[in-house]
Amino acid sequence: MNNSVMIQIPGTTANCGPGFDAIGIACTVYNDFELTFHDSSRLVIEVDGEGKETIPTDEKNIAYQAVLDLLRKINHQIPGMTIKMFNRIPLSRGLGSSAAAIVAGLVAANELTGQSLSKQQLLDIATSIEGHPDNVAPAIYGGVTINVCRDGATECLRIIPPKPLLMVVAVPDFILSTKAARQVLPKQVPLQDAVFNVSRSALLTGAFCTGEYRHLSAAMDDRLHQPYRQQLVPGMPEVLRAAFDAGAFGSALSGAGPCLIAFCDQNADHIGQCMVDAFQANGITASCMVLSIDTDGAKRI
Amino acid sequence: MNNSVMIQIPGTTANCGPGFDAIGIACTVYNDFELTFHDSSRLVIEVDGEGKETIPTDEKNIAYQAVLDLLRKINHQIPGMTIKMFNRIPLSRGLGSSAAAIVAGLVAANELTGQSLSKQQLLDIATSIEGHPDNVAPAIYGGVTINVCRDGATECLRIIPPKPLLMVVAVPDFILSTKAARQVLPKQVPLQDAVFNVSRSALLTGAFCTGEYRHLSAAMDDRLHQPYRQQLVPGMPEVLRAAFDAGAFGSALSGAGPCLIAFCDQNADHIGQCMVDAFQANGITASCMVLSIDTDGAKRI
Repeated sequence: MNNSVMIQIPGTTANCGPGFDAIGIACTVYNDFELTFHDSSRLVIEVDGEGKETIPTDEKNIAYQAVLDLLRKINHQIPGMTIKMFNRIPLSRGLGSSAAAIVAGLVAANELTGQSLSKQQLLDIATSIEGHPDNVAPAIYGGVTINVCRDGATECLRIIPPKPLLMVVAVPDFILSTKAARQVLPKQVPLQDAVFNVSRSALLTGAFCTGEYRHLSAAMDDRLHQPYRQQLVPGMPEVLRAAFDAGAFGSALSGAGPCLIAFCDQNADHIGQCMVDAFQANGITASCMVLSIDTDGAKRI
Repeated sequence: MNNSVMIQIPGTTANCGPGFDAIGIACTVYNDFELTFHDSSRLVIEVDGEGKETIPTDEKNIAYQAVLDLLRKINHQIPGMTIKMFNRIPLSRGLGSSAAAIVAGLVAANELTGQSLSKQQLLDIATSIEGHPDNVAPAIYGGVTINVCRDGATECLRIIPPKPLLMVVAVPDFILSTKAARQVLPKQVPLQDAVFNVSRSALLTGAFCTGEYRHLSAAMDDRLHQPYRQQLVPGMPEVLRAAFDAGAFGSALSGAGPCLIAFCDQNADHIGQCMVDAFQANGITASCMVLSIDTDGAKRI
């Protein structure tokens, strides 16, 4: 058994408009995570890159917590360990940074202890830690994942779209907690809004499966969460509109936000600039990333 | 221009559980429809098979109405005509008999007048007559269709599942009007029920696209219409359960009912018998049909 392992974990975007709490996509922005078990009882955590100043480097670190969860699950002793995180996924922006940390800890610990757990088992643990599967599922499997929670387990269907698809992410310079983004949601919704999203999430899935991206414009409409959350993201309608006008197939809030994401197959840089400009026109400084779909999920490198 | 044409139109099942007002499937049960234009001003309508005693044979006939709608749409004179319907699709049972009549009239009239309208145009007319695209879309295109209404038009994505799939339909001997089945639905639903169906309709679409039918069990759960409609179909939970216990992947109300439909890839006759028996145990006489997916939609024969 090797006592050190390096894992690469993708960032993820969830919801994609109508697929609220159902659809996630792994993106080609990665954190690197190195886990070393050693004989001392010491815990050393080093963070570089995104979150260098803010991520806990003690027992509260969620990647460390995930390592412990896995070791306890398989009744493995808790050794001393060194964790080195190099983060490129922006924090608390709706790109699955916490899911990436959890999956990193689980996958690394599983690798160092003989890979005794399957991806499905890792998914179930990760979902119980994160509270929902939207980001942890694509972080584990890669690709587009459709996630359903049933009888305490998470059922996940993974799709690899047959044609290239680019994701342009506008990253505003403020953070938004998922908790705050959940608190603005209503408890009851009109049946017709539910039906609206049911048809769009089906069309979105069909568009990803078939590569018929011309449907993404209609398929990314949402009435269940974005109308309530746009008050939390200044300029959101304008940025989504700017992406569409610049040639994107469609656009949406990434996860619970505040990142906004547009899908296209060309002119990604131009679309990104238009999104950043629209944020700027609303007093928000933003940067832009052009990503594609990661098809591997978390893996040893 | 030929003055007589024969059209074959498939029956259709809609909703498939979570895909309420969004997903439809063309099935291998067909009506035949013969339209002849002639010089006299007479209208002759003959009906044989299903609905022989009840379908109007005068100007109220909906297939005739559809023929008129198309002729007016293209500014064609209204000739005398003879319509012969041979129906195998059960009436008012949730298998798209009215959609089949509408599509038959439109496709036949389009064929006899030089095919000037596209399938998309026929879909838009058919949707405006039927009020929703769920059944007319698969009746026109064949396969599994995802239908979204937007800006007054219907956007339709057609999927042909890559692996064989059988549909076992239990047909109870009573009818249910779509209107009655709509009246029992609530105007507001819990957000969590909406989210439940959003994930299931995505998973259902993904299962159809990929052929990973093991997901159909979870993917056919529904909280938006079946819980309210089951009061209208005696024995519904027991029949759905019987199908599952007999080996079906999943099962659901067909359209607005009262037919119940199960999906499987083997043992279809056994599953059908178990569904019929479960209906019988609840005092309902039922028959059974084993169908597969029609991939052509309405076509000239």
